[in-house]
Amino acid sequence: MGLLIRNVLAVLPAGQAHAVARHDLYVEGNQIAGIDEEPQGFVATQTIDGTRRLAIPGLVNAHTHTYMSMMRNAADDLAFTDWLFGTVVPIEDRLEPEDAYWGALLTQVEMIRTGTTCFNDMPMFVDQIARATRESGMRAVLARGLQGDAYDRDDFRLAQTMAARRENADCSRLTFRLGPHAPYTCGPNYLRMIADVAREEGMGIHIHIAESQDESDNMLRDHGCTPVEYVRDAGIFEAPTIAAHCIRVSESDRAILAQHGVSVVTNPASNMKLGNGFAPVPEMMAAGINVCLGTDGAASNNAQNMFREMGLLALIHKGTHDTPQCVSADEVLSMATRNAATALGLPIGSIEVGKKADITLLDLDAPSLTPLNNAVAALCYSASGSEVSDVIIDGRIVLRNRELLTVDEERVRFEIARICARLGLQG
Amino acid sequence: MGLLIRNVLAVLPAGQAHAVARHDLYVEGNQIAGIDEEPQGFVATQTIDGTRRLAIPGLVNAHTHTYMSMMRNAADDLAFTDWLFGTVVPIEDRLEPEDAYWGALLTQVEMIRTGTTCFNDMPMFVDQIARATRESGMRAVLARGLQGDAYDRDDFRLAQTMAARRENADCSRLTFRLGPHAPYTCGPNYLRMIADVAREEGMGIHIHIAESQDESDNMLRDHGCTPVEYVRDAGIFEAPTIAAHCIRVSESDRAILAQHGVSVVTNPASNMKLGNGFAPVPEMMAAGINVCLGTDGAASNNAQNMFREMGLLALIHKGTHDTPQCVSADEVLSMATRNAATALGLPIGSIEVGKKADITLLDLDAPSLTPLNNAVAALCYSASGSEVSDVIIDGRIVLRNRELLTVDEERVRFEIARICARLGLQG
Repeated sequence: MGLLIRNVLAVLPAGQAHAVARHDLYVEGNQIAGIDEEPQGFVATQTIDGTRRLAIPGLVNAHTHTYMSMMRNAADDLAFTDWLFGTVVPIEDRLEPEDAYWGALLTQVEMIRTGTTCFNDMPMFVDQIARATRESGMRAVLARGLQGDAYDRDDFRLAQTMAARRENADCSRLTFRLGPHAPYTCGPNYLRMIADVAREEGMGIHIHIAESQDESDNMLRDHGCTPVEYVRDAGIFEAPTIAAHCIRVSESDRAILAQHGVSVVTNPASNMKLGNGFAPVPEMMAAGINVCLGTDGAASNNAQNMFREMGLLALIHKGTHDTPQCVSADEVLSMATRNAATALGLPIGSIEVGKKADITLLDLDAPSLTPLNNAVAALCYSASGSEVSDVIIDGRIVLRNRELLTVDEERVRFEIARICARLGLQG
Repeated sequence: MGLLIRNVLAVLPAGQAHAVARHDLYVEGNQIAGIDEEPQGFVATQTIDGTRRLAIPGLVNAHTHTYMSMMRNAADDLAFTDWLFGTVVPIEDRLEPEDAYWGALLTQVEMIRTGTTCFNDMPMFVDQIARATRESGMRAVLARGLQGDAYDRDDFRLAQTMAARRENADCSRLTFRLGPHAPYTCGPNYLRMIADVAREEGMGIHIHIAESQDESDNMLRDHGCTPVEYVRDAGIFEAPTIAAHCIRVSESDRAILAQHGVSVVTNPASNMKLGNGFAPVPEMMAAGINVCLGTDGAASNNAQNMFREMGLLALIHKGTHDTPQCVSADEVLSMATRNAATALGLPIGSIEVGKKADITLLDLDAPSLTPLNNAVAALCYSASGSEVSDVIIDGRIVLRNRELLTVDEERVRFEIARICARLGLQG
């Protein structure tokens, strides 16, 4: 059983950068088994002609909330408190478990069609997200959102996390993390409990830190420290940690994040949309922090499309820093692929022998990729995601010539319309 | 001969905002002849089922250089002078007239496929761009780039403009403007000559103003004024003027632009990409300036996709102003449609009886538009352009179910590859 992608223009790692050249890619099982060199005993049961295709590592959406897609464009151009407490939370309070399943499936359809193969999620109803992900064929890291004050090992949200982890131990595409929501929703003792569980179970952490100025102001007033210091002091950074946002992080905060090997996920669309500003991405890179890229959930970023996000990331810091030589296309592609692999501790994120076969193919006949001139630049500055023709995840073809093989999209649309009607959304 | 778009969810003007509801749209000749009410004697020779479609006014790309598409991603992440003098100008010096034709055709393919129906161009080889536009079926306003120092009515670039205008007088989709390139490439006497010709011929102006800090610094040093004042003092603003960029414009400059009814085109991707920063769009709106939206050329914005540009515009000023209530989706849609119609003086930009039938249809089954919830927000925050299924320009179906009816795309790709090879571009 083997998949051969023949004569494809492929973006391979080359030191810190990328090199683009024609290759034959051999996939055996769920792995990349050979590049140009046919593995011993390889039998091609499927072949894709790559002549007019560009192969890139599957994109990794390093921070999102996939269940939220029914809220897409339901709360726009609103002040933060009206957005969160006027719209998002009242809808969340009325969600049924099944709604999260359909919501996650819709998000995954959009992600697969735009070349994302893996996502790092902070959901409600984590068992439903696992169910959707098993069906769609995507790779995911799930960290059910946790919040509380006490050092309570019987916390029900933690129990849900551990149950979903046990129940999905048979699926190698799914891994689980602990997801303390944020410094402002988790007390120090609760965070200490999470840190202890993480150490004992060998689990990673996924948390929001320093998303808004209010968060920093309140932390200083109530605890006399920054959000980064608060989370560090609770011992969270002793586990492998992925911190979303980190917009309001001082030079000292950045040094703390770098020192503890915390990976940061920047979410440019969501941060701008909610009026939270621009994360200091060039400064975090300079501090040696491993920076990744995410969309955030559909309530604050109404597109779950990593090409859109790569385009934003490659542009906005050139704007804020008044120079075209700031956050290069090459760096952005790394943030959307191998940096995320490092953060998640998964053997993905690059087209290399031995890595899992998570590969996205783009159609080189698309006008936006004509002429190509520079493939890596084109991925950031020209592609919209619509160029994606084929997606391979864990060695399996999930999207073939723009046909999605794993999900009944018409059924998803039907169920989402039903859910929106019940929730009083326009649909 | 009539086209009926039946039962379509349509974005219609409603005061300063938009209203979204189901309608039947009747097109006769090149006009919108009826909404819900069938015009007398109407015979539907073509019918489009709009049940799963969203109809919006065709988007207007209010500033670009369509001939440049062969330079897509040929000069990225470079400092401005390396970009302009190291790459762009040396390539331009070697362009043949026919290259501009194929380059413009490629840009137009990308624009049509992403829902743009009209563009405001500043080309070289204006006759070739006219030729391409006649074939593609798009609507265009062409202003051949002009530069010089003397009051010279025999200027060869001006002569090319007037010749193309005469030769295309039979094509109602084409209009012509005068295109003095920029304050730093046009002397005061040259600008006075252009202003005189504009007045005599009843022509509008298309010019770049205040794109970079260097431009402003040099203008102050050499002429003791701002770029806006310099252009005003030469009499240019006595003609209907469209000014691209206007990034470095003071409060006093903004008052001058407003007072003279100058329309400004903001180009967020290009401005960020070249490290020129963010135009003061909210401040220009507050000053009462008619603000429009453009992509700029492919050498500084490697996507000629107005959905990408609308997404940027709706987000970046929320980031720079730290508030989600800044440059709303509704305002962005107006900038990409009816504000541009006002700037260009054309009866387009809205779905209204009596307007030219320039209409874009989007596929509501696209995951990015599911659920829709708020159509206007979705256009800015969710759509990538790939949702565009049908495009009608001047009453003619140019794109039908994603099939482009006017241009041989394979031939365009072939010719662009040939041109890139000749120019030493990677292709």
